[in-house]
Amino acid sequence: MSNKQETLRWSGDAATGKLVLIDQTLLPTVLEYIECGDVEAVWEAIKVLRVRGAPAIGIAAAYGVCLALQQHVDGTSDHFRSRLKESAEYLASSRPTAVNLFWALDRMTECAARNEDRTPVDLLDALFVEAVRIHEEDRQMCHEIGRHGAELLDDGQGVLTHCNAGGLATAEYGTALSVFFTAQDLGKNLNVYVDETRPLLQGARLTAWELTQRGINTTLICDSMAAQVMREGRVQAVVTGADRIAANGDSANKIGTYGVAVLAKAHGIPFYIAAPSSTFDLTLASGDSIPIEERDAREITHSFGRQTAPDDVAVYNPAFDVTPAELIRAIITERGRIEPVDEEHVRAMIER
Amino acid sequence: MSNKQETLRWSGDAATGKLVLIDQTLLPTVLEYIECGDVEAVWEAIKVLRVRGAPAIGIAAAYGVCLALQQHVDGTSDHFRSRLKESAEYLASSRPTAVNLFWALDRMTECAARNEDRTPVDLLDALFVEAVRIHEEDRQMCHEIGRHGAELLDDGQGVLTHCNAGGLATAEYGTALSVFFTAQDLGKNLNVYVDETRPLLQGARLTAWELTQRGINTTLICDSMAAQVMREGRVQAVVTGADRIAANGDSANKIGTYGVAVLAKAHGIPFYIAAPSSTFDLTLASGDSIPIEERDAREITHSFGRQTAPDDVAVYNPAFDVTPAELIRAIITERGRIEPVDEEHVRAMIER
Repeated sequence: MSNKQETLRWSGDAATGKLVLIDQTLLPTVLEYIECGDVEAVWEAIKVLRVRGAPAIGIAAAYGVCLALQQHVDGTSDHFRSRLKESAEYLASSRPTAVNLFWALDRMTECAARNEDRTPVDLLDALFVEAVRIHEEDRQMCHEIGRHGAELLDDGQGVLTHCNAGGLATAEYGTALSVFFTAQDLGKNLNVYVDETRPLLQGARLTAWELTQRGINTTLICDSMAAQVMREGRVQAVVTGADRIAANGDSANKIGTYGVAVLAKAHGIPFYIAAPSSTFDLTLASGDSIPIEERDAREITHSFGRQTAPDDVAVYNPAFDVTPAELIRAIITERGRIEPVDEEHVRAMIER
Repeated sequence: MSNKQETLRWSGDAATGKLVLIDQTLLPTVLEYIECGDVEAVWEAIKVLRVRGAPAIGIAAAYGVCLALQQHVDGTSDHFRSRLKESAEYLASSRPTAVNLFWALDRMTECAARNEDRTPVDLLDALFVEAVRIHEEDRQMCHEIGRHGAELLDDGQGVLTHCNAGGLATAEYGTALSVFFTAQDLGKNLNVYVDETRPLLQGARLTAWELTQRGINTTLICDSMAAQVMREGRVQAVVTGADRIAANGDSANKIGTYGVAVLAKAHGIPFYIAAPSSTFDLTLASGDSIPIEERDAREITHSFGRQTAPDDVAVYNPAFDVTPAELIRAIITERGRIEPVDEEHVRAMIER
């Protein structure tokens, strides 16, 4: 992959380098990189969604800690460590609901605790290595998911995806999209149909952009067209990501995923979930325990700056739905594929 | 129904009256009536879609002929009749693909032919009576569909509809929506879920408006949420319109209808089509012979006045899909319900 499409990367060394990010708020019409030279710039980028997606936010925050400390290596060790604590708290306030953000900041704090006796200069180096490691682990995870998923697809096949489970949310290849990118790396040409994914159009804005940037044959459709695309025999597989997976394999993902899974079954098309093992929550027996968040009515009635529905209409806007395990042919993780999808096989893969 | 929500109505007598229309281009945010006092105003209203929907266009054109002749009753009979011919040709040019427009204008021309010996004043009266008859027949057809459909629904049920098959396209109650309006008239309170219907949002803009105007409990959803609404047990029936129905009952309708029908089947929910007998084309053996029109990519990539997809992405934008007869529990026509839906029962109802 060329640097041109890298969601985020560090440019330079630990002491003087900067974090370079795609400003995702400008996609899909403008591809612009911004340089974050201080922790405030990283905080702002997370806050206003210039960088988004759980893994990518965690990586950005880890590098943000390094940026916060660059100017403080000449002071006392106490000053350096209090500055570290402050910057972690500050970064945690950028998106208070992002679990991955806290996870990454905890790793940075634990790294500092493990290196108690280092000088500020040496500790910054250790922290930078930890940030790079977080980044690299995510990249590796994406590639492994891609490898286990690409085996399922043949050259010339059509596939359908919903929402965005791509590199923009992760260090590089993403999860569902990693399957397509890896298939392409292996010389398999796919025709990828992308649901636009109302109400927020992550499919149209982000997935279609990522796929076309990498030269994959991409066709954008409205969500309501997926059934027709299946009926016409245009797709032989469906691959989506997941936000949370229960012990029995029931998978919560962006609203619309469940409908696509039902349609796939009716057309005899295998439906796959691609997600890292960290997505599993084995404390949940089934998807019934996953709460469905409802979002603002205006996402539907006032999309993209224009009112398109009457003032007084009620709206139901569930952000997620749960696809039951029996509709999922396999779950593709970085450790391998779970198939068939049931509690026994989930636990065998995830608890090991 | 109060005049307030009438799609179109004639105000006054034949000689001096005017056609009053809802300007549908301003919906759903503004409800404004325009008065068409001459044939040019009717032509413009059809041209720019202030009035839309096959039946409504035909009715507007019939009244438009009357408007064209109001100033000519004092001239010779020849002058009056040549003016009639000119005005019919002129109105036919407003939307050259609208079959109902030509049908209504033909009825007006035939009416004049049947009344060869009348004076201009008397002929204008006869033409006005014919326009009112076209209007009244459509109103009656809508009510009959509503009556045959409302029997299928119970008080307190949830129903789902897709696109707009409402009164805005017809003289009064519409087709699918007539079922809901008639149920309400019978004291059955329904909870109607409305698919927004991408790409052109007829559900959000028109159906949601019509239902809320009449005080029906209406909930707007994105197309991708229909499966979740069904899974949660919120709807006990689906009713949509149709654009064209083959001899075996296969029904072409707005893209997305087929997917909704598949989802309804998977959830054990009956799926109904409501459409007048004029929608059937018995020369088509099945839906396979119905061509699927593809529309402009920009309807998907540049919705809502903003570009929401990358410049170079391919788009598939089928305007319609075909729901196979086996997914349709019954077709509700003004003559009664066709059930089960197969060629034998279609012909028995439509050919009689």
